[in-house]
Amino acid sequence: MDVQIAVAKIGKYATSNSGDTVEVVERPQGGVSVVMADGQTSGRGAKWISTLVVRKVIALLAEGVRDGAAARAASDSLFTERQGKVSSTLNIVSVDRQTQTLVITRNNPTPAILAYGDKIRLLDEPSLPVGVRRGTRPVITEVPVQAGVTVVVYTDGLTHAGDRCGERMDVLTCVQALLDDDPASPQSIADALLNHAYRLDDKRPVDDISVVVVRVGEHEGDEVRRMTVRIPFSS
Amino acid sequence: MDVQIAVAKIGKYATSNSGDTVEVVERPQGGVSVVMADGQTSGRGAKWISTLVVRKVIALLAEGVRDGAAARAASDSLFTERQGKVSSTLNIVSVDRQTQTLVITRNNPTPAILAYGDKIRLLDEPSLPVGVRRGTRPVITEVPVQAGVTVVVYTDGLTHAGDRCGERMDVLTCVQALLDDDPASPQSIADALLNHAYRLDDKRPVDDISVVVVRVGEHEGDEVRRMTVRIPFSS
Repeated sequence: MDVQIAVAKIGKYATSNSGDTVEVVERPQGGVSVVMADGQTSGRGAKWISTLVVRKVIALLAEGVRDGAAARAASDSLFTERQGKVSSTLNIVSVDRQTQTLVITRNNPTPAILAYGDKIRLLDEPSLPVGVRRGTRPVITEVPVQAGVTVVVYTDGLTHAGDRCGERMDVLTCVQALLDDDPASPQSIADALLNHAYRLDDKRPVDDISVVVVRVGEHEGDEVRRMTVRIPFSS
Repeated sequence: MDVQIAVAKIGKYATSNSGDTVEVVERPQGGVSVVMADGQTSGRGAKWISTLVVRKVIALLAEGVRDGAAARAASDSLFTERQGKVSSTLNIVSVDRQTQTLVITRNNPTPAILAYGDKIRLLDEPSLPVGVRRGTRPVITEVPVQAGVTVVVYTDGLTHAGDRCGERMDVLTCVQALLDDDPASPQSIADALLNHAYRLDDKRPVDDISVVVVRVGEHEGDEVRRMTVRIPFSS
């Protein structure tokens, strides 16, 4: 099998930094994890919080700590450091070679999407962000790794797109349309969702928006791992 | 301007894990860093070492520590932990928004390449891996960020490709040919170098091979940050 991950990210209009942080790391026993956090408020303060949460989770994952335990640790750590005064959402999507499972960890009121082929399941069990209360637990969904599975996670900037203009983003319908449109690549799904939100926000996003798409497909081609990153760089 | 980063990576033949680690992180003051390490020997032990070195460097960069100081810290830390008995190469390539510079940090006897358009400069000042001696310093090259700059760094698996079969990899000539071939994308350069090495090794790489290409280009298109990852996943 092949795991493909696509990330698309844009900052709130007229801020120099997105307050969201998304990072991808290899798991020590094989496989890969994507960690996404959206810090409370926006700009530098939010970036500081989301970076702290993602760093904490990644450091623990690198030591072999399970995703759920890493999420709980990130929550307790932020709660202790900031006395429950700041919060951050947290999503972890892991493809774990050891357990041969796909693990979706949510500390985020915003739902996530799990699809088999074009059959969508909305992961919307109630879930709290990290850092606000002692002992916050993530909602975890664990399914076998198999070809044809797609996971889409996103920050609330995506779901709130268009609020200002009165035409709200319907993420589920968009994802369904994109999955029907075989064979949409993970990058084209992430880009299409972001572009749609960007247009609904009149090209001036009212919040940071991040979209992550993870797809497990049949193995195609060589054994090479590849990563491509593109970052606009202002002088 | 836009920064594009491409990574291509393959493990030694018949090992389940590459001993090389490559990770990309955002810099706290803006910009991005790529960190690459090649741990001594191969397989699980090497992976453990290279992960340790990359984690250490990334944690420090995330705190705002300068690249050179992060490299020295990683060396001292590995030296202290393993009493100088294990070594790892380390390369950091950063595009720093604060200083508006491109910083190439080398603790690696294998050279790196810095090109302006198709004019190549080989960065081959003597440089030691981290972890072997107390007080090891990196070789640092810092140049202004400008469109048209390309940096290529790689592990010694690339330079040693073909050794077994008698036809040795000439990285410099390959890169020159790829840069002459305008407009080669960073991913096509990384892929072409890796594929050439793979063929010289008779499709059975004698060592882990990692290639990183960083390119600064004119700003094109939108303000979206994008990342794509592809990982073959064995069950």
